[in-house]
Amino acid sequence: MVGDRIRQRLGIRHPIVQGGMIWNAGARLAAAVSEAGGLGLIGSGSMDPDTLRLHVRKARTLTAAPFGVNVPLTHRHAAANLDVALQEGVRIFFTSAGSPAPYLPRLRQAGAVVFHVVSTPDLARKCEALGVDGIVAEGFEAGGHDGRDELTTLVLVPQVVAAVRVPVLAAGGIATGAQMAAALVLGADGVQVGTRFAATTEGSGHEAFKRAIVEAGATATHLVLKKLIPVRLIDNAFRRRVLEAEARGASADELRELLGRGRARRGMFEGDLEEGELEAGQSAGLVREIRPAAEVVAELVEECEAALRRVTQHE
Amino acid sequence: MVGDRIRQRLGIRHPIVQGGMIWNAGARLAAAVSEAGGLGLIGSGSMDPDTLRLHVRKARTLTAAPFGVNVPLTHRHAAANLDVALQEGVRIFFTSAGSPAPYLPRLRQAGAVVFHVVSTPDLARKCEALGVDGIVAEGFEAGGHDGRDELTTLVLVPQVVAAVRVPVLAAGGIATGAQMAAALVLGADGVQVGTRFAATTEGSGHEAFKRAIVEAGATATHLVLKKLIPVRLIDNAFRRRVLEAEARGASADELRELLGRGRARRGMFEGDLEEGELEAGQSAGLVREIRPAAEVVAELVEECEAALRRVTQHE
Repeated sequence: MVGDRIRQRLGIRHPIVQGGMIWNAGARLAAAVSEAGGLGLIGSGSMDPDTLRLHVRKARTLTAAPFGVNVPLTHRHAAANLDVALQEGVRIFFTSAGSPAPYLPRLRQAGAVVFHVVSTPDLARKCEALGVDGIVAEGFEAGGHDGRDELTTLVLVPQVVAAVRVPVLAAGGIATGAQMAAALVLGADGVQVGTRFAATTEGSGHEAFKRAIVEAGATATHLVLKKLIPVRLIDNAFRRRVLEAEARGASADELRELLGRGRARRGMFEGDLEEGELEAGQSAGLVREIRPAAEVVAELVEECEAALRRVTQHE
Repeated sequence: MVGDRIRQRLGIRHPIVQGGMIWNAGARLAAAVSEAGGLGLIGSGSMDPDTLRLHVRKARTLTAAPFGVNVPLTHRHAAANLDVALQEGVRIFFTSAGSPAPYLPRLRQAGAVVFHVVSTPDLARKCEALGVDGIVAEGFEAGGHDGRDELTTLVLVPQVVAAVRVPVLAAGGIATGAQMAAALVLGADGVQVGTRFAATTEGSGHEAFKRAIVEAGATATHLVLKKLIPVRLIDNAFRRRVLEAEARGASADELRELLGRGRARRGMFEGDLEEGELEAGQSAGLVREIRPAAEVVAELVEECEAALRRVTQHE
């Protein structure tokens, strides 16, 4: 049955992983998704090791189901966060933004399962050769930091599926069960969903940011800061200044100065909707309300089945 | 049955429309696709009225099945080409790049079916209100000229399907039957396929351009010239100069001068792979060989059915 490889590999009931988004994915969200039968991920990219330890311990009090930790490998606390998570008994890791090579020996020795996020088929092939257990194929429509080649989920997923033998999760642009069904049809073993889970009761982002996702129209997000690390943001005053600077050919240094420090925290955690970075995917246009994560998981599963029934019932 | 609305509306056996690509979609390609049970489109965007008349007449000698004409409405011959096609008995039109409003009364009076290409749900809604018969929802991954909002097919299609009642074709990034199946799962009534049909025996483009599509890797295309009209091109010397100019903040005027005239013809029709514009979608990475269009149609249908069977057989 489609999804079985990922269910077995991760010990979950539904082939749905909640993206480990910075500032949005703390213990409450990860535990709620895992408790509902998906895989919750704590997003360590906005945490120091002590904070991550607290979140892992808290999540354990909220669910007996497995959950994991997302580790952006360019984060200054990446190595320390991996150590803390291992000490605390976490055995599922989703790594991104950087090569997993230096960390894999330690993770494998500990018996951990490691999925790495890629944006091209070539990188998927390299990661499989390094020994990762699975791939997250993330398309251009995803929120937050994206790859430079701008391959969309529809085009990326079938090429990654053809390139590797390990399980593949589709990510980027997936907020509904019909989109989940489309990803499975493309050959994915399951999906990773970010933005939709940021706008849940349990998301750790600011309420104003969650409402910004719900209110975002179809064309609200755009990929900017391509001379630094490309990032998809909801339109606001800060993003408009970035677009203006980019149109006049601003250098990487100028953009770095304009960006400054702490904008992601300011936008998503502190709720400054005009001057913060509001990381969200194109799928924000499909998110209609803030709901409990368990309802989102259940709806994704029901809609996915309904979408597949609809296209096959008369054939 | 999924696809029935489009089959009935267009009088075709398979819900597959061949994109009316400039320099690639002459009489031979359109007739071959229609003869195989899809809908072939003659691309009038690179034709003057006399040339279009010859292609329509030639296509009629090659097939008794219905075919249509694509008319980019910003083309200087748009009005004259519409007239010629109507005189020659064409009753299926796919319009793009500009508002169909000024042309709809004449087309409807003649009993023609009109589909318009859109890149946002809002534009789909407006076109339905104007009275078009169907919508082509074309995502960011499509080749040639794209919309400015960069919505991908995965995210655009479900929002367009929800926004309108008329039939919706998914376009952009679709080169395989599994991708076609994914589009149907997202709610589309059928698909429009461009790049894959450019690389067919019957495509009117230069052999060197067809081979460039086949040889393109996953990351070969990129959207450029966003200060003029965004266009997705395969990497070559010309595109690299454009990227350099854009990185330093070149103005629209500078880019216009760099572009000059006739680059699309030079690249796709004359086969100048370094100095011409090579319009292709991200799906070029999925095109493996130059084949007869009828084989492409048959394979799309078979793969689509197989992809849907695979995800539903054990449920």
